[in-house]
Amino acid sequence: MAEKWLAGVDLGGTTTKIAFITLEGDIVDKWEIPTDNSNEGQLITINIAKSIDEKLLIHGKSKDSLIGIGMGAPGPVNYETGVILNAVNLGWKDHFPLQASLEVATSLPAVIENDANCAALGEMWKGAGNNAQDVVFVTLGTGVGGGVIANGNIVQGVNGAAGEIGHITAIPFGGSPCNCGKTGCLETIASATGIVRLANDELSKEEAAGELAEKRAANGKISAKDVFDSARNGDSIAQKVLDSVSFHLGFALAAIANTTNPENIVLGGGVSKAGHILLEAVNEYFRKFAFSSVRESTKLALATLGNDAGVLGAAWLVKNKMNP
Amino acid sequence: MAEKWLAGVDLGGTTTKIAFITLEGDIVDKWEIPTDNSNEGQLITINIAKSIDEKLLIHGKSKDSLIGIGMGAPGPVNYETGVILNAVNLGWKDHFPLQASLEVATSLPAVIENDANCAALGEMWKGAGNNAQDVVFVTLGTGVGGGVIANGNIVQGVNGAAGEIGHITAIPFGGSPCNCGKTGCLETIASATGIVRLANDELSKEEAAGELAEKRAANGKISAKDVFDSARNGDSIAQKVLDSVSFHLGFALAAIANTTNPENIVLGGGVSKAGHILLEAVNEYFRKFAFSSVRESTKLALATLGNDAGVLGAAWLVKNKMNP
Repeated sequence: MAEKWLAGVDLGGTTTKIAFITLEGDIVDKWEIPTDNSNEGQLITINIAKSIDEKLLIHGKSKDSLIGIGMGAPGPVNYETGVILNAVNLGWKDHFPLQASLEVATSLPAVIENDANCAALGEMWKGAGNNAQDVVFVTLGTGVGGGVIANGNIVQGVNGAAGEIGHITAIPFGGSPCNCGKTGCLETIASATGIVRLANDELSKEEAAGELAEKRAANGKISAKDVFDSARNGDSIAQKVLDSVSFHLGFALAAIANTTNPENIVLGGGVSKAGHILLEAVNEYFRKFAFSSVRESTKLALATLGNDAGVLGAAWLVKNKMNP
Repeated sequence: MAEKWLAGVDLGGTTTKIAFITLEGDIVDKWEIPTDNSNEGQLITINIAKSIDEKLLIHGKSKDSLIGIGMGAPGPVNYETGVILNAVNLGWKDHFPLQASLEVATSLPAVIENDANCAALGEMWKGAGNNAQDVVFVTLGTGVGGGVIANGNIVQGVNGAAGEIGHITAIPFGGSPCNCGKTGCLETIASATGIVRLANDELSKEEAAGELAEKRAANGKISAKDVFDSARNGDSIAQKVLDSVSFHLGFALAAIANTTNPENIVLGGGVSKAGHILLEAVNEYFRKFAFSSVRESTKLALATLGNDAGVLGAAWLVKNKMNP
């Protein structure tokens, strides 16, 4: 019997990643197409279907080589109905029936999920999650997102709002405004944007000096990467920002771990590329605030799959749903 | 066909509650026996078996009327192996094979679980949890415990330490010592002990006066109930303590809800008998710190089952495992 594959799709506002993946989670082929979000996004699923057909031809495979198609989409998803609740960046109207659209376009059984949850599932299956049944995935990017896996399944919550880790309040009173309408959310501190804001606050103080201050003077601005680079070089302002970010992140992750005691908490997203300097600083606070038996069992780790996490998690969903 | 029942057991250090429960969760009979924890607890399961046999006789039922027996035990449990990891109060040595002992003694299929988790399952099934698939149960008693249900199942965590809500850190630096070895745990504030401690701290201040101060002067001590009673009567010190407890509880519960977005967070245990004055104060802070779509969907509620939650949850476990 010819080998069966899973199709995994990671839908973004500008590009769509697509992959053929084996049942063992090995990527056979992976490619990208532009996301056409014109005309209320009506070509998005059709383009994906066409692209898959073309690739199957190249591989000399027929459609029935594919068990199904899974997709991570950038927005809140109703997993039961397969409806994406809102996704303005993609042109779709609210409550677009994405799963049905994908099934019609591809003639394949489809399953959809929020993209952060897909990344979490991908890391659980083939990455830093180490195939554990209980994993929390935290994306530290422009914002802060998350996915919570318990007993091997994504925790959706009653309103699909589980995993909103970025909106755990870090500073109860007087924190910075967050896009969500609250103040002091973890996202206002531990996102790339938050880190830059904290650094600029420090650099605006009269006595500010050192490497990071010089970078800002030279370039007119700084990035989160600048902060980590300068911290690594011993710059005191950068280290102070790193300490603040790590405290708030470690504090929130310990609260999460005391609640769900996952085997791994995986840090991904652009900010996590800071690597061990961030991981170790967060871990120190995490261990301080975690309950003893949680401290002994829940490990922090850096994401290992990078951009592949989304397509792998989407493929895992198909594997899990179709149970081939 | 004669009606089949479930046997639910809530094991405590001094008394053991036992009940016959229908598949619909109605309690047919409920009684208590003393827990004999002498001789390394070797009679505990035998006494339960004898007591069940006697009750069956009274009901004119045979053993095969029972589908199985579920038990909530006061200690960390390995659900897979049926071993209770430690339970010093019961006389058992560490790693006592409780499920096996119960099966041998009763000749029934048995399932064991931590008692706080059983209470959570009971409230999910027949109480304030409203049969939701995602529920968090918080016990506010001498200590603070918890149970987390996601996708209809207890979240155990990798080391059985999920639901350690009482050990979420509330005060990151300079908090009071907790029995767990950390400082500033939620338990040091929101347990009965914590509430009394906070109140005594306030009453020790020079200017302390009012109803609560008078109660302490008259009785030489105060209880958590005194604090709530005085707060209801407008005593400013009691209201300050209530505000502090509610802030820390609301803050932690919002972090939990932003992580798992349960349909209900159920407050149980002795402290929850304070009722609406506590619920409303906690809810105000909870709503302040919860993400918008969590705020709209996750409700706080008072436990409704009281002492029956444990036996009901234990019976639910049997129903769920045996799938009759």
